[in-house]
Amino acid sequence: MRVLHGDYGVLSPAWAGSQAAAITSDHAFIQALLDVEHAWSAVLAEAGLIPQEHLGAITDAANADDYDLAAIAAEGVGGGNPLIPLLGAYRANVAKTNPAAASSIHIGATSQDIMDTAMMLIIKRAGEQTLATIKSAAAALVSLAHEYRDTPMVARSLTQHSLPATFGWRVTHWLQALAQAGQNLEQTLTQTALQWGGAAGTRASLQDFLTRTNSTVTADELVADLANKLGLQNPPPWQANRVPVLVQADSFAQVVAACGKIANDVLISVRSENGELGEPLAAGRGISSAMPHKQNPVLSVLIKNAALTAPQLLAQVYTGAVANVEERADGGWHTEWEALRGLVRTSGAAVEKTHELVSGLRVFPDRMAENLARHGELLATERMVAHLAPRLEERGVADAGQDKKYLQGLISRALTEGAAGETQLKPLLLAELPAEVVTESELNNLLDPSAYTGDAAMLVDQITSTYIDWSHS
Amino acid sequence: MRVLHGDYGVLSPAWAGSQAAAITSDHAFIQALLDVEHAWSAVLAEAGLIPQEHLGAITDAANADDYDLAAIAAEGVGGGNPLIPLLGAYRANVAKTNPAAASSIHIGATSQDIMDTAMMLIIKRAGEQTLATIKSAAAALVSLAHEYRDTPMVARSLTQHSLPATFGWRVTHWLQALAQAGQNLEQTLTQTALQWGGAAGTRASLQDFLTRTNSTVTADELVADLANKLGLQNPPPWQANRVPVLVQADSFAQVVAACGKIANDVLISVRSENGELGEPLAAGRGISSAMPHKQNPVLSVLIKNAALTAPQLLAQVYTGAVANVEERADGGWHTEWEALRGLVRTSGAAVEKTHELVSGLRVFPDRMAENLARHGELLATERMVAHLAPRLEERGVADAGQDKKYLQGLISRALTEGAAGETQLKPLLLAELPAEVVTESELNNLLDPSAYTGDAAMLVDQITSTYIDWSHS
Amino acid sequence: MRVLHGDYGVLSPAWAGSQAAAITSDHAFIQALLDVEHAWSAVLAEAGLIPQEHLGAITDAANADDYDLAAIAAEGVGGGNPLIPLLGAYRANVAKTNPAAASSIHIGATSQDIMDTAMMLIIKRAGEQTLATIKSAAAALVSLAHEYRDTPMVARSLTQHSLPATFGWRVTHWLQALAQAGQNLEQTLTQTALQWGGAAGTRASLQDFLTRTNSTVTADELVADLANKLGLQNPPPWQANRVPVLVQADSFAQVVAACGKIANDVLISVRSENGELGEPLAAGRGISSAMPHKQNPVLSVLIKNAALTAPQLLAQVYTGAVANVEERADGGWHTEWEALRGLVRTSGAAVEKTHELVSGLRVFPDRMAENLARHGELLATERMVAHLAPRLEERGVADAGQDKKYLQGLISRALTEGAAGETQLKPLLLAELPAEVVTESELNNLLDPSAYTGDAAMLVDQITSTYIDWSHS
Amino acid sequence: MRVLHGDYGVLSPAWAGSQAAAITSDHAFIQALLDVEHAWSAVLAEAGLIPQEHLGAITDAANADDYDLAAIAAEGVGGGNPLIPLLGAYRANVAKTNPAAASSIHIGATSQDIMDTAMMLIIKRAGEQTLATIKSAAAALVSLAHEYRDTPMVARSLTQHSLPATFGWRVTHWLQALAQAGQNLEQTLTQTALQWGGAAGTRASLQDFLTRTNSTVTADELVADLANKLGLQNPPPWQANRVPVLVQADSFAQVVAACGKIANDVLISVRSENGELGEPLAAGRGISSAMPHKQNPVLSVLIKNAALTAPQLLAQVYTGAVANVEERADGGWHTEWEALRGLVRTSGAAVEKTHELVSGLRVFPDRMAENLARHGELLATERMVAHLAPRLEERGVADAGQDKKYLQGLISRALTEGAAGETQLKPLLLAELPAEVVTESELNNLLDPSAYTGDAAMLVDQITSTYIDWSHS
Repeated sequence: MRVLHGDYGVLSPAWAGSQAAAITSDHAFIQALLDVEHAWSAVLAEAGLIPQEHLGAITDAANADDYDLAAIAAEGVGGGNPLIPLLGAYRANVAKTNPAAASSIHIGATSQDIMDTAMMLIIKRAGEQTLATIKSAAAALVSLAHEYRDTPMVARSLTQHSLPATFGWRVTHWLQALAQAGQNLEQTLTQTALQWGGAAGTRASLQDFLTRTNSTVTADELVADLANKLGLQNPPPWQANRVPVLVQADSFAQVVAACGKIANDVLISVRSENGELGEPLAAGRGISSAMPHKQNPVLSVLIKNAALTAPQLLAQVYTGAVANVEERADGGWHTEWEALRGLVRTSGAAVEKTHELVSGLRVFPDRMAENLARHGELLATERMVAHLAPRLEERGVADAGQDKKYLQGLISRALTEGAAGETQLKPLLLAELPAEVVTESELNNLLDPSAYTGDAAMLVDQITSTYIDWSHS
Repeated sequence: MRVLHGDYGVLSPAWAGSQAAAITSDHAFIQALLDVEHAWSAVLAEAGLIPQEHLGAITDAANADDYDLAAIAAEGVGGGNPLIPLLGAYRANVAKTNPAAASSIHIGATSQDIMDTAMMLIIKRAGEQTLATIKSAAAALVSLAHEYRDTPMVARSLTQHSLPATFGWRVTHWLQALAQAGQNLEQTLTQTALQWGGAAGTRASLQDFLTRTNSTVTADELVADLANKLGLQNPPPWQANRVPVLVQADSFAQVVAACGKIANDVLISVRSENGELGEPLAAGRGISSAMPHKQNPVLSVLIKNAALTAPQLLAQVYTGAVANVEERADGGWHTEWEALRGLVRTSGAAVEKTHELVSGLRVFPDRMAENLARHGELLATERMVAHLAPRLEERGVADAGQDKKYLQGLISRALTEGAAGETQLKPLLLAELPAEVVTESELNNLLDPSAYTGDAAMLVDQITSTYIDWSHS
Repeated sequence: MRVLHGDYGVLSPAWAGSQAAAITSDHAFIQALLDVEHAWSAVLAEAGLIPQEHLGAITDAANADDYDLAAIAAEGVGGGNPLIPLLGAYRANVAKTNPAAASSIHIGATSQDIMDTAMMLIIKRAGEQTLATIKSAAAALVSLAHEYRDTPMVARSLTQHSLPATFGWRVTHWLQALAQAGQNLEQTLTQTALQWGGAAGTRASLQDFLTRTNSTVTADELVADLANKLGLQNPPPWQANRVPVLVQADSFAQVVAACGKIANDVLISVRSENGELGEPLAAGRGISSAMPHKQNPVLSVLIKNAALTAPQLLAQVYTGAVANVEERADGGWHTEWEALRGLVRTSGAAVEKTHELVSGLRVFPDRMAENLARHGELLATERMVAHLAPRLEERGVADAGQDKKYLQGLISRALTEGAAGETQLKPLLLAELPAEVVTESELNNLLDPSAYTGDAAMLVDQITSTYIDWSHS
Repeated sequence: MRVLHGDYGVLSPAWAGSQAAAITSDHAFIQALLDVEHAWSAVLAEAGLIPQEHLGAITDAANADDYDLAAIAAEGVGGGNPLIPLLGAYRANVAKTNPAAASSIHIGATSQDIMDTAMMLIIKRAGEQTLATIKSAAAALVSLAHEYRDTPMVARSLTQHSLPATFGWRVTHWLQALAQAGQNLEQTLTQTALQWGGAAGTRASLQDFLTRTNSTVTADELVADLANKLGLQNPPPWQANRVPVLVQADSFAQVVAACGKIANDVLISVRSENGELGEPLAAGRGISSAMPHKQNPVLSVLIKNAALTAPQLLAQVYTGAVANVEERADGGWHTEWEALRGLVRTSGAAVEKTHELVSGLRVFPDRMAENLARHGELLATERMVAHLAPRLEERGVADAGQDKKYLQGLISRALTEGAAGETQLKPLLLAELPAEVVTESELNNLLDPSAYTGDAAMLVDQITSTYIDWSHS
């Protein structure tokens, strides 16, 4: 017989070995399926609808360690989902201890009830862990923003130096994005919902069971107890409405996109030629024995890798939902599972790495200053032109309407004549412009990049103050 | 010179000719860009920061009809976005009337401010129209659910008849999905936000302008006025944080997925062999002169078409965001635009069609009944087994633990022996089971599909009552 | 310590338990990595460049069974790929037997050489198995097309009956698509290529090694030997050119799309209301104990599931390639792996299921005939109009230019007045049209659907003859 | 009435204004539809099956300029495709000149025949233009590779300097990828195929027409004439087999991915901090009046933008194909159109920009040398270790098996002690290692990066020679 080998993420360093991977593994999903089945039997036992003495065997058997994941996966093909073989194996395990108890499982339920609810459990469990890590990362970003609130750094637009800014200002954008995505996730996690309706969502089988057993407890009460036990919301059955699934998927995708931006920035900044940032150093990470000078930015590479997969994983969840039809879809539903787990897992792993990245980020203000100085005074020509142009016409230096063009001509000359990074703009302007237009000291001020960062510091304060309490909540 | 021809959706019947297409066209986007520029000049004029007399020319020139869309699109390639050539043309048009006014435009702004804000305006304008149509469709669905609350229909799972249900019950799932997506959209539309920060998001240029003009009005006040004038939220600058964009994209994608499910159901139901539903009839739609018996379900086909594009459009918006880097991305930002517009446009058009579809849907209860009868009594065997199995062992008909297996054996025999749709289950059971296990009249009840719809009617009432007020809001 | 659990496809019935899954597992990939390392050492030993006696230990240690997949996956995060920890473990295993031999591994190679080449090996191994199964499925389709060459069946367009055709004709489209995709795969599998170039692709380290060892064998000769040993093509180093990877991915995606079409058709046809086809019956598959009348079309559902994932998997491979940069990408390369394996695995599993499906497909010509009869004579009205219209004007029945409109009016009346499936078209036409326009026997011929299938039979012969030899090759 | 405005690519600078956009516009597609209809009538006239005198009016009306694109697009919604209203308008235009000729159009054809064939025409027309531009770009790359064959440049791996290489070597990877994609496109363009089969693909209507007209020409002959006239292949009808469409889509996606890699490299290289490359300068491109020092790399930004959209466009074509069902799909087919056109258009535009980019690329060998010198001697430590390690043990400097570790320790010390870019490796090694291990002059050689580029120059020659003839073909 063929030995079945499991996948551990050998081809997926974006999530291999992460906590998120452990909490979303096939094992964890089987456990979630068993948790749902078990919780329902417990609800029925508490209501006196199944014998209390059945519960011992039902509880004992509800441990994923006792199930052959490979066999369940392979047999799941027969019915199109893993719950069917798992339920058989669960019943058999229960029956070993207490044969009668095997019939006290899965009463009035359908496999979709268990699958959808287990997926919501996984989302909630993994999501809450991810959320906590997001908050820690956000707290680290707040600190980083505060620490480098006034550290000059050039802003880049389409790869090019645009205006002077600060590293703190860049960090607040990381914070904004990650915290907003985190708050959205926090909100959607409160919407993780029980699905409970039987084969057609009508609760026909459950109601029939309650009739047969002359139950005084209503279906509504039982289902509410189940939701409560599992920590899930309790809307009406929604098996043929996949919007609740899309809402969850969206939030995780937002999170990994926010992480990806941070990684992208770091990946530019750790280049030898840029040198403004360094990843935290850790033993055994990012090191090449053949090329000892390299410090591979592995955290960022793998966060970027995670981010590059998110759009397709999200599209795959949507593709499943878009193929939804009738009361249970013929392939669409099945398409959601792997992608949803993939999104939750990859997103969680990306957040873990982002947390480590921003918590230990090495910042090199000297290199920031050096790079800023490459275009130095040129970065503030926008301001210089704004101030001086109006004076040219009134003082007869330029013809009417030609004032800006006149100054831009001087800038172009300075760019052409000067060596890179050493433009002759200031001497040229002083030589060409009469003193009544501008003095040397005024020109020094007008062209000083560090005095042209606008509201950056104020906005750092404002934005960090918006998220600081939440990050510690 | 090459004549430039516009695209009108010749290859995109999913949105061609829709209201959503009109409100999201290139023309509409150019208008939104002009609206943002104009509103900013108006704010500055009101604050006395530019001459009040400039505003006339600035207002007169802010009409998209006066701009050559093809030229602006083609020239947009030079700077990577259409705002740059539009701004040049706008200034030139203003200058024709009032040369001095041309310098009272775009003060302290950067092209990303205008582009992002205009995109939010388009989202808001189109989204509000789409939302209104969603509500109308939801209202129609409430009526449909009420009308067919008790109309028997078989539920299908993986294409197969599963249990008896009602058409009203199916409709409530359409309603749930569309209304939840609509409510999410309603919520995210309240978050459409102004982006205003200048080239590095720091408002450096604006602050410098206020300093030069000795303004007593603050930047914060001016920006708040602008947001207010445009009907947008006013968060701090977010140009390098794309989560606000993702949030919007998600909501539109949810909407079109919800529409897609309805279309999928209709596309199965209008098949000759099924015949349970018909699309509303309209002159010139769905008719083939060569094949007059055909009534092509064109609304549903095009809604499905729209739904099939949504996952990729959403993935494209995310791909753009995932390529975000530094203060303005080198291609990622540009990737968002076409996809975002595509999502808003296609989603809106799908809603328009869905509204028409569900408002005029032709329902054929006779065909529903006929199809339900195909497996008639078999649909309730789950219940029959649940009731009778326990009696078999106690009455000595089956060995211990074999009761269900015994009944399933009888069902299999009935399936094998009977012709399709005319199983001999009831006679066989009556012949094989002693009267103390079941009487004919009890068996009739147990196997009656119409008596096995569980909470369907109650859930129709519950779910419709949840959304009815909102649908009329 | 946390126990690491592997994934077995619990959430992926589309491939769980398939042969394709076994041949593409993490275990299989680790084996492929070891195969590449081992083959290179063997090449060097054969050339006398490393001691022949090292090879024993190097061979013995090249067995994936001896490696901890979970640990390698987790440690792969440190360097961004699994080869780095695997190589460490491989060297350690070799050293246990022969310490000196550990330095005879990986000479002049870089981790990308091993990763890319191993991926090509997996593609080739899995692809050849998949190709063989495609050919078997194609052979089954040829038989099916021949068997049902003349079995009448209605063609459907946009869900609606369009014209009469045959089941054989439909099957030839399945055949065309699957065989074309298979032939494309066959072609691209011949292009699976060795990647061998060292860290910058320049073979600097290898050339230096050959210099140091005074080798008389050239690098070109050694690399050619390696390609030959692995059964791969030997182009120049291509590590920063990902087109060779895209070419492979495309072929697998085409295959699964072709399978998806077959599944879609079956999923419509197995519906109770349609009933034209049935999936092959197999113990334990598609059966619901609660709903014994159901025969879930699980093969088709899972093929459709596979097909629904292919577009995103392909997009993910492309997304990786699109993020390619410099001599080794910072995340793009890593993004290819999981998606490529996913595509190869899912595609292979879909083909296995498709082979089983079409080999045992149950065909019900009676139901085909019954469904065809629903619109019976209406399906040939196109022909009737073509024949009769020209006669109307010349015989004074209709005004000039109104002949078609006249006949369509009669068809519309027949549609309106007749019950579904029992139109009164023929009696109406005979009543309204003079005998000199058409006689009853001619009308019978004109409206006979089975006489209006055009070239269907001839095309079945032509198309099957195109692929029959290939399918047995 | 609402004025309908066309889209010109205002939101799509990736293709706005390109030649590819002109050749794939709605106008061009309408022209292709008319070309197909017209060619078929011409074939029939040549065969004497329609009156020769009809052809004048049919030819005169086959000009897209005479049709209202907006109206056709909007009316296309009624039947689900634009051919239906276009055919009506075409017939009406023909009838204005020659009323009888209106019935000599579209004989035996179905709208899918015209749509699929027109799409193939567009693919062929645009593809051939794109292919020619690819060849020109490849020729430019060959020249570039030759010119910079020996220009030292550091190779980068995961953003980090890895080994010395040359700019010519990098360019050959650009060439490999673009030329391979181009050759694949060249191959698939030879497979653009006529689709001709009528509503069910059986040619029933056409055969009936030939019978009615007592034609001596066969359907096969006529269809072959049509294919020949249109310059397309002539396989059997394939309307329900979408693999021929996927094959085309794949090739265009490969092309844009190859362009994307070039753009990514340029976008890194034009950064101030890197400075190794510059985009060609052109008036009005990439210039910011506010920030005159910026030279936005707009070509590369827009190529990257194009590349970022390709995966989703390709996925959308596949999504359409995966939704294929029966003889004409209910939404899947429709989903292909916009995405296919998008892929052809964007890919063509990306190639145009890539051609311009590589033809005028500004190369700065000084900056390459400067950057290479950052890690200078460290880049060759791999070689130094390989040479010296074996000597350490034999000369008693290091313990058995510790030789590499000993040297790596020295490298680490040098890295720690030296300032960035100015390591003290050479002095340290000379101080610590006895002269019998290494002499200063040998060490100079071992650590010279420019002497460690392996086969780079040879591979440049080999690879360029592979493609040079093709690029001029």
